[in-house]
Amino acid sequence: MNGLHLTADLYDCAATALLTDQPALAALCRGQVAAVGLTAVAECWHPFPASPAGPGGMTGVVLLAESHLAIHTWPERAGVTLDVYVCNFGADNSARAEQLLAALVRALCPARQQISRLYRGNPG
Amino acid sequence: MNGLHLTADLYDCAATALLTDQPALAALCRGQVAAVGLTAVAECWHPFPASPAGPGGMTGVVLLAESHLAIHTWPERAGVTLDVYVCNFGADNSARAEQLLAALVRALCPARQQISRLYRGNPG
Repeated sequence: MNGLHLTADLYDCAATALLTDQPALAALCRGQVAAVGLTAVAECWHPFPASPAGPGGMTGVVLLAESHLAIHTWPERAGVTLDVYVCNFGADNSARAEQLLAALVRALCPARQQISRLYRGNPG
Repeated sequence: MNGLHLTADLYDCAATALLTDQPALAALCRGQVAAVGLTAVAECWHPFPASPAGPGGMTGVVLLAESHLAIHTWPERAGVTLDVYVCNFGADNSARAEQLLAALVRALCPARQQISRLYRGNPG
């Protein structure tokens, strides 16, 4: 059960088009998951309707054999929150998780970011 | 974007049947999401195959209008990890998130648990 859960809260992302383009965002997620050697097993996405504040955001999850990648976008604030959670069943996937998060952050180009690391599933 | 992300790592869960019963676990998640006043918008689940260690676990996510609920089970260790992440767009959903996590923990009956709280999406 032990593993690493990374979270990233991204502000003022320059890649604004990605925040409302579900096929492009899903393709980015799938592509980067595969590029770092993690395994996608399912995914689901939900677009939110536009509001007076602007176009609607998206929420999506790629289920991994190693746990999950989640993404939520707030286009009205050019904001994104990301989760990359990997368990280490059979292998230490921490480096892959860090690579995946870094690749997604690079693609989204935030002006500011807050990243946290939580080590989970170790009963001590 | 601001919100509360709860994680729970549960060990030696007494409700072992739930850890391999996808329809029951999905119904539990859906029911408790609705009971606390959060809004499910999509979900996806993936069962893992059995191994020499025992029956396979499951991974699943319920996407919420407020963000997401994720669950991963390790039946061979009677373990579960949970994420309840809610943003506070339009309302403070922190109490609902705490209620949802508490209800799921109660249903799974762990002998030991580790819970963490991360406040996200506040650029300061």
